[in-house]
Amino acid sequence: MRILFLLLLILSMSIDVEAQAHKRAREQGIKIGVLPTGKYNAITDVDGVRVGHTTLIQADAIRTGVTAILPHNGNVFQQKVPTAVYVGNGFGKLTGSTQVQELGNLETSIILTNTLSVGTAMNAVVGYTLQQPGNEQVQSVNAVVGETNDGYLNDIRGRHVSEEHVLQAVQEAKSGAVQEGNVGAGTGTVCFGWKGGIGSSSRKLPEKAGGYTVGVLVQTNFGGVLQVNGVPVGKELGQYYMHQQIKDSADGSCMIVVATDAPVDARNLERMAKRAMMGLAKTGGIASNGSGDYVIAFSTNPELRIPYTSDAKTHAASTLRNDEMSPMFMAVIEATEEAIINSLFMAETMTGKDGRTVEALPIDKVLKLLKKHNAIKR
Amino acid sequence: MRILFLLLLILSMSIDVEAQAHKRAREQGIKIGVLPTGKYNAITDVDGVRVGHTTLIQADAIRTGVTAILPHNGNVFQQKVPTAVYVGNGFGKLTGSTQVQELGNLETSIILTNTLSVGTAMNAVVGYTLQQPGNEQVQSVNAVVGETNDGYLNDIRGRHVSEEHVLQAVQEAKSGAVQEGNVGAGTGTVCFGWKGGIGSSSRKLPEKAGGYTVGVLVQTNFGGVLQVNGVPVGKELGQYYMHQQIKDSADGSCMIVVATDAPVDARNLERMAKRAMMGLAKTGGIASNGSGDYVIAFSTNPELRIPYTSDAKTHAASTLRNDEMSPMFMAVIEATEEAIINSLFMAETMTGKDGRTVEALPIDKVLKLLKKHNAIKR
Amino acid sequence: MRILFLLLLILSMSIDVEAQAHKRAREQGIKIGVLPTGKYNAITDVDGVRVGHTTLIQADAIRTGVTAILPHNGNVFQQKVPTAVYVGNGFGKLTGSTQVQELGNLETSIILTNTLSVGTAMNAVVGYTLQQPGNEQVQSVNAVVGETNDGYLNDIRGRHVSEEHVLQAVQEAKSGAVQEGNVGAGTGTVCFGWKGGIGSSSRKLPEKAGGYTVGVLVQTNFGGVLQVNGVPVGKELGQYYMHQQIKDSADGSCMIVVATDAPVDARNLERMAKRAMMGLAKTGGIASNGSGDYVIAFSTNPELRIPYTSDAKTHAASTLRNDEMSPMFMAVIEATEEAIINSLFMAETMTGKDGRTVEALPIDKVLKLLKKHNAIKR
Amino acid sequence: MRILFLLLLILSMSIDVEAQAHKRAREQGIKIGVLPTGKYNAITDVDGVRVGHTTLIQADAIRTGVTAILPHNGNVFQQKVPTAVYVGNGFGKLTGSTQVQELGNLETSIILTNTLSVGTAMNAVVGYTLQQPGNEQVQSVNAVVGETNDGYLNDIRGRHVSEEHVLQAVQEAKSGAVQEGNVGAGTGTVCFGWKGGIGSSSRKLPEKAGGYTVGVLVQTNFGGVLQVNGVPVGKELGQYYMHQQIKDSADGSCMIVVATDAPVDARNLERMAKRAMMGLAKTGGIASNGSGDYVIAFSTNPELRIPYTSDAKTHAASTLRNDEMSPMFMAVIEATEEAIINSLFMAETMTGKDGRTVEALPIDKVLKLLKKHNAIKR
Repeated sequence: MRILFLLLLILSMSIDVEAQAHKRAREQGIKIGVLPTGKYNAITDVDGVRVGHTTLIQADAIRTGVTAILPHNGNVFQQKVPTAVYVGNGFGKLTGSTQVQELGNLETSIILTNTLSVGTAMNAVVGYTLQQPGNEQVQSVNAVVGETNDGYLNDIRGRHVSEEHVLQAVQEAKSGAVQEGNVGAGTGTVCFGWKGGIGSSSRKLPEKAGGYTVGVLVQTNFGGVLQVNGVPVGKELGQYYMHQQIKDSADGSCMIVVATDAPVDARNLERMAKRAMMGLAKTGGIASNGSGDYVIAFSTNPELRIPYTSDAKTHAASTLRNDEMSPMFMAVIEATEEAIINSLFMAETMTGKDGRTVEALPIDKVLKLLKKHNAIKR
Repeated sequence: MRILFLLLLILSMSIDVEAQAHKRAREQGIKIGVLPTGKYNAITDVDGVRVGHTTLIQADAIRTGVTAILPHNGNVFQQKVPTAVYVGNGFGKLTGSTQVQELGNLETSIILTNTLSVGTAMNAVVGYTLQQPGNEQVQSVNAVVGETNDGYLNDIRGRHVSEEHVLQAVQEAKSGAVQEGNVGAGTGTVCFGWKGGIGSSSRKLPEKAGGYTVGVLVQTNFGGVLQVNGVPVGKELGQYYMHQQIKDSADGSCMIVVATDAPVDARNLERMAKRAMMGLAKTGGIASNGSGDYVIAFSTNPELRIPYTSDAKTHAASTLRNDEMSPMFMAVIEATEEAIINSLFMAETMTGKDGRTVEALPIDKVLKLLKKHNAIKR
Repeated sequence: MRILFLLLLILSMSIDVEAQAHKRAREQGIKIGVLPTGKYNAITDVDGVRVGHTTLIQADAIRTGVTAILPHNGNVFQQKVPTAVYVGNGFGKLTGSTQVQELGNLETSIILTNTLSVGTAMNAVVGYTLQQPGNEQVQSVNAVVGETNDGYLNDIRGRHVSEEHVLQAVQEAKSGAVQEGNVGAGTGTVCFGWKGGIGSSSRKLPEKAGGYTVGVLVQTNFGGVLQVNGVPVGKELGQYYMHQQIKDSADGSCMIVVATDAPVDARNLERMAKRAMMGLAKTGGIASNGSGDYVIAFSTNPELRIPYTSDAKTHAASTLRNDEMSPMFMAVIEATEEAIINSLFMAETMTGKDGRTVEALPIDKVLKLLKKHNAIKR
Repeated sequence: MRILFLLLLILSMSIDVEAQAHKRAREQGIKIGVLPTGKYNAITDVDGVRVGHTTLIQADAIRTGVTAILPHNGNVFQQKVPTAVYVGNGFGKLTGSTQVQELGNLETSIILTNTLSVGTAMNAVVGYTLQQPGNEQVQSVNAVVGETNDGYLNDIRGRHVSEEHVLQAVQEAKSGAVQEGNVGAGTGTVCFGWKGGIGSSSRKLPEKAGGYTVGVLVQTNFGGVLQVNGVPVGKELGQYYMHQQIKDSADGSCMIVVATDAPVDARNLERMAKRAMMGLAKTGGIASNGSGDYVIAFSTNPELRIPYTSDAKTHAASTLRNDEMSPMFMAVIEATEEAIINSLFMAETMTGKDGRTVEALPIDKVLKLLKKHNAIKR
């Protein structure tokens, strides 16, 4: 076990080095939407949100991992956050959704991993929560674990994700720039027939619209007809769902996590969550039958934190009026679209199970196409 | 009354003449998506579906109307069709949605009109159904009436739609090419700050995917950042939601009707309905807070007709497997996107209430932009 | 028209006189549940809530009416109230449900009437709202109109409810004791094979549970196996659904309106609404296929009023924590059960269309049964 | 491990012996509802359905277990069954619900266990499915695992359920009479303040209503005011939620599994699932805030089996018309009520964690009360 871990760390490091060669969409001159981004153009631009990855690249066929998203720095079980879940297409295994929908809150980190490791990740989150100082009396934990299926490149039936891998992702979570591409839960994923992975982006509303930040993180593993900033890249490159020569199932899934510092209650968070699927649509995704497309949206606003126990019967808070939601919706759509594109731009060609190789998006060709279509700043 | 009617007919005629000057998106060389269209590239490509409009353009301020979509040529109450409703954003007044969702069927024509005329349209549909031969014993009618708000150009508070106008739309419904733009329920609508209206489109699946047809009709009255075949037209023309100089609310609504001849049951029709919002997203719509975005999807497949009464306890039918739905989803997305763009291409500049004018989409400029972005075949 | 109106008023008066002969369940010694009632044991115990009825008993076959429930004394459009809708069984025609669900608020009175008069009631509510002082600029109104089908006793196809009848119910709405039985929208309804109608009840929580009031009003028109305070009255009297000799369809519907002064937001109001169906279950209702069972739940709490327009982006309010909801749920269940039983106890034998007679619940027999079953205080 | 297992088997045996002392409600003369039961008055009356339990009673504080419900004797992944999930109150951890809702089918056994062992049970089900002959290529498994919280009597934080325990329940599943009370997932549960557990019941429709069987199995762990066949047992015995002297939280949960051999599709199965909550209501349950009340309903009808793969695009089947659902609804309500009462009648006094004892329902007193209330055949 120890040996594998060392191997893993070495490989992760080498990935980091390689990753620097890749540039995010915006660094390549691609400007999606009309709203400005936050500082890191990542979900971590929402104050307090942290992201951690465990990347498992081992032997010939292990290409998987775990990504953890932490809503704030405290004990989330004791200080829950308003949260909503929207099911874009439910061919997936997101745990915890019904309790989030009923109670309107999240009480753990959000864990993303592969389809067959969800039980293990649940166990890890439950164990972690039971052991957290202050939770000694806790007897019920609603672990929120999502997944996509990396079984094309990964020996998914081998179930190589352990509880330790999950805990590692939680413990190493950090603010600032988010690692993207072939990392964490995105290590082995495939998107539009190219290598997918983790992507992130954010939007900052103008002050007159509240100045709030909306951040998105995605785990991309789905299909359709890739569109980059409006340009029909999939069509032009001849790789898309229902192309006569290409046998692309369009299946797979997309997990989308939306965070905001705006004081949005669970009802309006659900409306924001719904808009993430509109951002996905703009990349050419079709939410195919076999896709598990889920959106989890939460607010980190301190005033809206929900204490586990309270002497008071009521909770006082100022929440955003319905009338103020449209800019928030727009921010979600833009950030989701860009996060997906980032996942493709940052992913690298990967060879895995049965010697299969999934190519990275051919960035040069794509940039050329974007220039041809005037969809890029030069 | 009679005089107004004559006036109406004359005006409708003049619209027809003008309308011929306009071309649909595809006639302009704009090819949205990868799937082929049906014969008329309209919802009427689905066998048996008919569309009728009553257009009310009277005096200075009456700019409204009614559009009726009939699922088949028979008595719909006696031969109901499998149907689903999906609520993209519920700031709207669609009647009949809960019964459709519960029972999975539609028993009347679908009527679209303006927000404040929904009650009148309900009454008209109820009266029509009660009077239909064979319905003498009927005591319950689930009228499905949708709307968007044309109050910017139309004296909506005057509630100028009468039951007769509704019946006229039903009675004049026909198959073949569908009138688009400033007609029927789209007479006074506004979309992305330009003149919206009625639009339609269809897709025909390849035989290996079943050869089914999917048709879409839209009533467009919403906002965001217009995108035409991927080209950021709204951004380039400086007219979009959250543009600093432009006060565009993005509010309004979009009614979307999806028809297919494929044998799809109510559960899978709901999944198709959800995808229509993904088509809307690709035009730059954001489903703003004030938008009533509803999708009604039905199947005309003869084997799936649901008789009002039956001696049999069970209904035998072959329905499409979940696994076969992805091409259907793709067809819905493409046809919805194109139907919305058609509504903009076919609408004309309109002056209405309080002397307000809403300009038609500046087609020449748009085509120029599309050329610049290589998004058009010449 | 004027003549009919006079007739109507006279008949209403005579009903009042007759109604006094009947006693409510609790006056008969039947104590449902464990929580105390409010002062009037009616929805009007919730401060500010008013109820109005228009009762139409004309000629041989008109047996219908309108019931209006007003959430507060002000302009509801300008000061909306948090509201939720739950669909117990959607074979019904409730308008406005999707907007209530999306925005979490109610902006009109709630109107109950018969199935085929919903369009007329919508028109009346829209007209009323447009004309209210302060609403001069309003262009969109979400009328919430529910119904049950009184077509067994009433010439429902004649559609005898006019907009004036609806407005009358709104205008005559008052606080204090609520008229029950064959009044308003309950005039022609049938419940468990006996005469149904309007019923109401309330519960007051102990101070340690917040001291809140929960009120319920029902329009009963459904079937099953009647149970009164746990006693199988339907079974013992040999009148119930699926009884071999009895041809009772169990169809029909139940509209349920729940009000509270507790500071409950829309999400928790939806949870309260769901519990109303549990109260219905305790009366022996089965939510049969043909039943339109809808619950509308709102909070009148002044701090939670939602102004139509506001300079502020946020709304500050203290809302009840999830943890405090259980007593509220229990109150809803008990008040709904008792409201339904009240509707039966207060309804009178009615003869209507085609000379059909629906007997009132045989109170003496029922009381005897309840004594036999020890379910009544003597 | 082996030693503990032996201990377990010995204890299970002793339980069996004790259990024979208890009688089910109907054996005591309590006849709930109006419809006849199936042969075993259990979910196993639905042809092909099997139930297995693993009961963990070890040392002072381990009082938990696993119950498995198998929909048919074949490979469920390869031959899925139409299924729906309804969430009565979502404070629970049911996995797999979104995929069931999206695709309308079930592809594994249903596993019930305790709250903190859901991850382990998922892993067991996934492992089992991957290993089943014929599933060698399977890479995605939607495990449906529900739970209630037995933490009052059980050292739930110790997470004593292993994957082996889960597999044992699956492997030992059998048709015929179902063990009830303190067995399997009901080993440590508490209901209305008395010892809860597993309960089951069934109904058989008359031939003219199709002759179908509906079976229900429950895991009871919730509160309210216990009502047995209409008799207010909780009130009379002075033990109920909101009783001034009793500190009963009413929290806990109820898992309900509904099976039928009728040809009911997923949409109508959802409607059946909703009715199970109405049966729960009739026992006095209130679906309190802290309750995780879930219903899973499936059809075993052979014609409706959904093959995992198929050369055909469509699936031909005869399904029950909406019009025929009311008797099915009634059967669900009755069988759920009786299954819950059976769980209480069959459970025994249990001492567990921290020396806490939960008394069995005092059957003698209850029978006396039922006699006093004429709710029992003597």
